[in-house]
Amino acid sequence: MESVFGEADYLACCGSHKFAKHMVEAGPFSSPQLAISAATHIWFNQVDVTGWLEAFSAHPQIGQSPSHDHKSPTSAQWSKGEQSTAIATATDSTLQELYDWNTCYRKKFGFVFLICASGRSTPEILAELKRRYSNRPLVEFEIAAQEQMKITELRLHKLFSVAANTPTSDTQF
Amino acid sequence: MESVFGEADYLACCGSHKFAKHMVEAGPFSSPQLAISAATHIWFNQVDVTGWLEAFSAHPQIGQSPSHDHKSPTSAQWSKGEQSTAIATATDSTLQELYDWNTCYRKKFGFVFLICASGRSTPEILAELKRRYSNRPLVEFEIAAQEQMKITELRLHKLFSVAANTPTSDTQF
Repeated sequence: MESVFGEADYLACCGSHKFAKHMVEAGPFSSPQLAISAATHIWFNQVDVTGWLEAFSAHPQIGQSPSHDHKSPTSAQWSKGEQSTAIATATDSTLQELYDWNTCYRKKFGFVFLICASGRSTPEILAELKRRYSNRPLVEFEIAAQEQMKITELRLHKLFSVAANTPTSDTQF
Repeated sequence: MESVFGEADYLACCGSHKFAKHMVEAGPFSSPQLAISAATHIWFNQVDVTGWLEAFSAHPQIGQSPSHDHKSPTSAQWSKGEQSTAIATATDSTLQELYDWNTCYRKKFGFVFLICASGRSTPEILAELKRRYSNRPLVEFEIAAQEQMKITELRLHKLFSVAANTPTSDTQF
């Protein structure tokens, strides 16, 4: 059974409009694996660098909640879930340190620090942020794009899983 | 003798404000070689990817004249000089082909095709554009940044040369 997803569904997985449009054109997909394979090709070969920056800007700063006026409520909800381990392992002082390093990171690179946070503790994320901070901007840009792809992969799985469990939703089958 | 250049001078060499600010802070330089060495470090290590895109957008499409309202008249003038070989070797049909490929390139990558055109003929530039068009966006982004650095290097030489020959200009010594 194929799930027919629209641009809004794919935007919740990755906030680049070019990505979402290409996914709609490439679909529908009969499995999450096929969707991920197409998504990987589209993300690295067809989405331009401006599209990468657009996707990065759809993420809240790590350690912070998505804003209430987030463009994709699904993305905001998933983001909270992905950060649940980080939140559970955070203290006031590590959260403050994370905030300060995030500010430095954004100042140096011009975009939010992006990491596939799923299952990672706040100290782990903080250590990774500090390590990556010394990278050249282009190197860091590529790492961020790879982290975005990991997040997209997890979310595509969620998208298919939600569609399979809620046949009465807006998603067409 | 050291030439003290301002942000506008460095912006004519490379249209990123972050680049120009860092160059002013790093200077003054006693030779073009020292300026180029600092510029290379700043461009690849301190200017972020948004700054790269800003610098790319300061260039006219290759084969076309800079717009009359160009932010840097010096940059516009130098751009014309750098394209003089290309212009001398262009025909109506190669110019049309260049225009069409430029359009495709910009659509795929989201920024203008950038090449250090100095001394290159239109057929050479066209062949290079076609070859690079098949690149992944990130690969092409890095190549464009390297071409920008070659252009910056040429222009830093010009900046020092102009300063040495026109001691009565606005540039302070």
